[in-house]
Amino acid sequence: MSQPGAAASSNDEPQVESYSFLGPSGTFTEAALAQVPAARGKHWRSVNNVGEALDDVVSGRSVAAMIAIENSVEGGVTAAQDALTTIPGLRIIGEYVVPVGFVLVARPGTALADVRTINAHPVAYAQCLRWLDTTIPSHAHIPMTSNVTAASALLDDGTLADAAIAPPNILDHYPLEVLAEDIATNRNAVTRFVLVSRTAALPPRTGADKTSIVAELPEDRSGALLELLEQFSTRGINMSLLQSRPIGDALGRYRFVIDLDGHARDERIADALLGVRRFSPNVVFLGSYARADRIPVEHTPAYADEVFADARAWLDDLLA
Amino acid sequence: MSQPGAAASSNDEPQVESYSFLGPSGTFTEAALAQVPAARGKHWRSVNNVGEALDDVVSGRSVAAMIAIENSVEGGVTAAQDALTTIPGLRIIGEYVVPVGFVLVARPGTALADVRTINAHPVAYAQCLRWLDTTIPSHAHIPMTSNVTAASALLDDGTLADAAIAPPNILDHYPLEVLAEDIATNRNAVTRFVLVSRTAALPPRTGADKTSIVAELPEDRSGALLELLEQFSTRGINMSLLQSRPIGDALGRYRFVIDLDGHARDERIADALLGVRRFSPNVVFLGSYARADRIPVEHTPAYADEVFADARAWLDDLLA
Amino acid sequence: MSQPGAAASSNDEPQVESYSFLGPSGTFTEAALAQVPAARGKHWRSVNNVGEALDDVVSGRSVAAMIAIENSVEGGVTAAQDALTTIPGLRIIGEYVVPVGFVLVARPGTALADVRTINAHPVAYAQCLRWLDTTIPSHAHIPMTSNVTAASALLDDGTLADAAIAPPNILDHYPLEVLAEDIATNRNAVTRFVLVSRTAALPPRTGADKTSIVAELPEDRSGALLELLEQFSTRGINMSLLQSRPIGDALGRYRFVIDLDGHARDERIADALLGVRRFSPNVVFLGSYARADRIPVEHTPAYADEVFADARAWLDDLLA
Amino acid sequence: MSQPGAAASSNDEPQVESYSFLGPSGTFTEAALAQVPAARGKHWRSVNNVGEALDDVVSGRSVAAMIAIENSVEGGVTAAQDALTTIPGLRIIGEYVVPVGFVLVARPGTALADVRTINAHPVAYAQCLRWLDTTIPSHAHIPMTSNVTAASALLDDGTLADAAIAPPNILDHYPLEVLAEDIATNRNAVTRFVLVSRTAALPPRTGADKTSIVAELPEDRSGALLELLEQFSTRGINMSLLQSRPIGDALGRYRFVIDLDGHARDERIADALLGVRRFSPNVVFLGSYARADRIPVEHTPAYADEVFADARAWLDDLLA
Repeated sequence: MSQPGAAASSNDEPQVESYSFLGPSGTFTEAALAQVPAARGKHWRSVNNVGEALDDVVSGRSVAAMIAIENSVEGGVTAAQDALTTIPGLRIIGEYVVPVGFVLVARPGTALADVRTINAHPVAYAQCLRWLDTTIPSHAHIPMTSNVTAASALLDDGTLADAAIAPPNILDHYPLEVLAEDIATNRNAVTRFVLVSRTAALPPRTGADKTSIVAELPEDRSGALLELLEQFSTRGINMSLLQSRPIGDALGRYRFVIDLDGHARDERIADALLGVRRFSPNVVFLGSYARADRIPVEHTPAYADEVFADARAWLDDLLA
Repeated sequence: MSQPGAAASSNDEPQVESYSFLGPSGTFTEAALAQVPAARGKHWRSVNNVGEALDDVVSGRSVAAMIAIENSVEGGVTAAQDALTTIPGLRIIGEYVVPVGFVLVARPGTALADVRTINAHPVAYAQCLRWLDTTIPSHAHIPMTSNVTAASALLDDGTLADAAIAPPNILDHYPLEVLAEDIATNRNAVTRFVLVSRTAALPPRTGADKTSIVAELPEDRSGALLELLEQFSTRGINMSLLQSRPIGDALGRYRFVIDLDGHARDERIADALLGVRRFSPNVVFLGSYARADRIPVEHTPAYADEVFADARAWLDDLLA
Repeated sequence: MSQPGAAASSNDEPQVESYSFLGPSGTFTEAALAQVPAARGKHWRSVNNVGEALDDVVSGRSVAAMIAIENSVEGGVTAAQDALTTIPGLRIIGEYVVPVGFVLVARPGTALADVRTINAHPVAYAQCLRWLDTTIPSHAHIPMTSNVTAASALLDDGTLADAAIAPPNILDHYPLEVLAEDIATNRNAVTRFVLVSRTAALPPRTGADKTSIVAELPEDRSGALLELLEQFSTRGINMSLLQSRPIGDALGRYRFVIDLDGHARDERIADALLGVRRFSPNVVFLGSYARADRIPVEHTPAYADEVFADARAWLDDLLA
Repeated sequence: MSQPGAAASSNDEPQVESYSFLGPSGTFTEAALAQVPAARGKHWRSVNNVGEALDDVVSGRSVAAMIAIENSVEGGVTAAQDALTTIPGLRIIGEYVVPVGFVLVARPGTALADVRTINAHPVAYAQCLRWLDTTIPSHAHIPMTSNVTAASALLDDGTLADAAIAPPNILDHYPLEVLAEDIATNRNAVTRFVLVSRTAALPPRTGADKTSIVAELPEDRSGALLELLEQFSTRGINMSLLQSRPIGDALGRYRFVIDLDGHARDERIADALLGVRRFSPNVVFLGSYARADRIPVEHTPAYADEVFADARAWLDDLLA
């Protein structure tokens, strides 16, 4: 799968760097990858699921993979979070946000009044259900593997479907017609993606960074979570994500996926990481990387790098 | 859909009470409903998704609905949590736990090597992902609404899927073949279900109770979550569940689904509910009900009912 | 001891209400009592120490006593705090602040250069020590029982002293001359006084109130103090005083004297008092009363009375 | 002033090291100094107050000074705490505990019924107040600089006092008579002393250490104190002393004298000191030194030195 203008390549030509994404062409994940300057002109490798994408990275088939990590409506994409937590050797190196919206498409000549059966990825279907219940109350739904496949399958022989829910750019790829636009309930929905590579040097500090970690609590008690969160609040660090995920060995045992505003080379983040590492029986560092919105992280002067350096100089002097 | 031994009934015979569950017959949800003494001999109404199940309750078609709420591997069943949060007039009245395991099934004659596209409920899919990544690395996944439907849809016209993840008892219901057994990563996995009715009097306090709430934070800052959690820790209350869910209006805004050990008629729980109500701009009380494991809730004498009564008497005396 | 304009009275005439204060006439404590409208025209009873003043109240000899409770330089007047904590049946009903400053006085005709020996209450002496060390480096100090006695004793036969440290108003009472003004190191020093009566109905809420309590911690650990303070922070209550006092049975065991911004009839204060009563093995309520500065207590709308009433109505509805 | 067996010395012979203590001979402070092995055979320099004692150290007249720092009944000896906070260049190097008890003494021929005015060090006065209130209700109190001076001053010309509170051994030094024995409320009272030297290398870690600091809060709000205390609780550190002291510039502004269990060379203490230094606008390190009771400090394995070293190695690896 090559993007327009990408270098010609194949699995036989490893000399061109590959980037993996959840395909086929036309997905929101591809749109996220299109935001990555370093990926321009490289081979874009379309894969079927997040496991395959991350395996490409671990095995070296791709230098990086773009995966969805959070949806403003649906919340954490849990399979991706769990994969990043449990597969060693991975590191998030960038964040990208893509607005998500949906259109209803059909083969040319189909009228909205004729639609009875709709191809749709179940997540897209759920996001458009309010519109469908009002407009086509008696429709049937055929679940599909992706938002693009839902549309492309309308052109297959023997398809049962009259229409499909698809991304707005679908007409760039397939000879279909739009029956209705903007059919999702939440018109401001976005999906957040991360670019994942093998563990390497940290991306440089930009001043508008995030740091992602996953931490287990030492015991199953509410006080333990409070203590974990105090590691951040006592250092003036804001969390932009806190997602509990079951550890999986028993009901009620969780680990927490946490995004912090700042970079591991910020003194306050580094110090908080030390605190978390000491406190948590198991902490995974997922990476420090530039925020999608490029908005500089604000912090009070009380937590500036100089304050940390000054404190260390003070203590060194006391202990000398 | 009637269980063996259930009273014959239909939608024309409203005189028999109905219980809704995610069907078809054979689902884990049905197994959970079989644990409810009050449901024996009643009409069991099979529905297609949690929204339909809860709508049955709201409309009065069913006296209660059994829905999955948490899986020890996958965590909160987010659609159910979100539905309970946003649909008014519902109340959790009981909790049930069912062990879960999975097999891979296909139409007769399919070989494992032929499998490319797999029907699976997203929770089941996540639980079997490690096995799938190893055995069928480039598979595609179609999310389905239930573990049984995933299998039964293999027999539908126009299906894209070659195989399905299903419960072990699936061959009792459909003419399929098992391609692989015991494919879940965690062989001790369980799913937690709740029985939901319309808002009514609280179930009586048993001493082994849970209370479920959903609370939004007043602002998007880590300190706000700390303050929310202190409402419980300052009253000696343990949380057995803390699940963040996006509010949906913007990335980074969350509400929290929380299970507390204790009943709203326990003084410390009632007092914490007051604190949460004052603190949170939006709090939903989902119910107080007996725990599935019937293990009495322990608390230190410092938080006994008498302590609260004594403090009130003391204050009343001061203010008199 | 009668103030100018007070009704003539004696211990034989109990029909005139008495107010006790640390005398003799001219002390800062008398200046604080002069701020009490209800005390005008009543008998003012001069006593020698705080124990005597409080005993007058307990026994009914006086309707109230004015005692010093905090000095901006010296901190809590610990004997007064401990007496209020341990003597049952007392209640603070008002707060008064008096600026404290000192002059050096002598018998008429004495020159500053002649001063060798100085009468001074030890606390006043400490506050003026910097000036004395500079101006009269080789002076001797005779400790006296009060700031007024230090001055009046200059007129006694056989006195050894040449000068005395005294309050600025001392010339209203004694035929002395001022050798130097404003000799205290801190020229903004004030002393805070409280008016104490027997336990009775609380003074009405004014909107500019304080509530004083003394609370022991349940165990000797830092976490316990944190939990105590959270009782206030989780209800948006500011503390204007936090003073540790040893319980006296062993080193390292403390109780805390706490002043809260607000009145026990404010819902958030009442609720915090309940929390403290439940948490602390021993809590003493010292009173709710109008602040000396009459500055209205500010609190965020999140902790308004209505919020508490609304939460109670909500819970009552849930439990109904 | 030489102890029995001390080397003969004088201010003209600086070759013998001096230790300053609050005299005169017979004080509890002298008893504390007698516990210091390094002081044996050295010159013991009797001074009149804590300021003079510390000035001896600052100026080099004495190598160290013994001062009272806390009394189990009265709490922090505030003048000593304030002096250590504000005089630069001092360091606590040891801690000593002395049991304290009191008698009432007078000039020969005085009857208890004649006593009106009592010399007493304020701490001793507070400890005997209950007995005095019962026995001599209308007494006046002259605060004196030491328990011995209180007694010896009865023999001065011009004294106002009839009696004094003194240590039981006072008759070894002065021709007085005991009017009452054992007059302190708490018969198990002790006073805690510290030995103070000029700033030098820290005493070695013994495993049974204390660290003393004084910290101001960044703002006048209860939350600030909570944040300060969290610096210790998040590192598993116990406080054995927390004493608020007014900063002196306005009512309601405090600094806190804090004793921590552990030595500044313990990783968790060092890390907490860094946190406090960053947080507090003004922090004074008073020293790390062996506890008087020699009881080893306990901490959970979660806060062992190795845990800190391991966390640093982990972070260094992440940032490499």
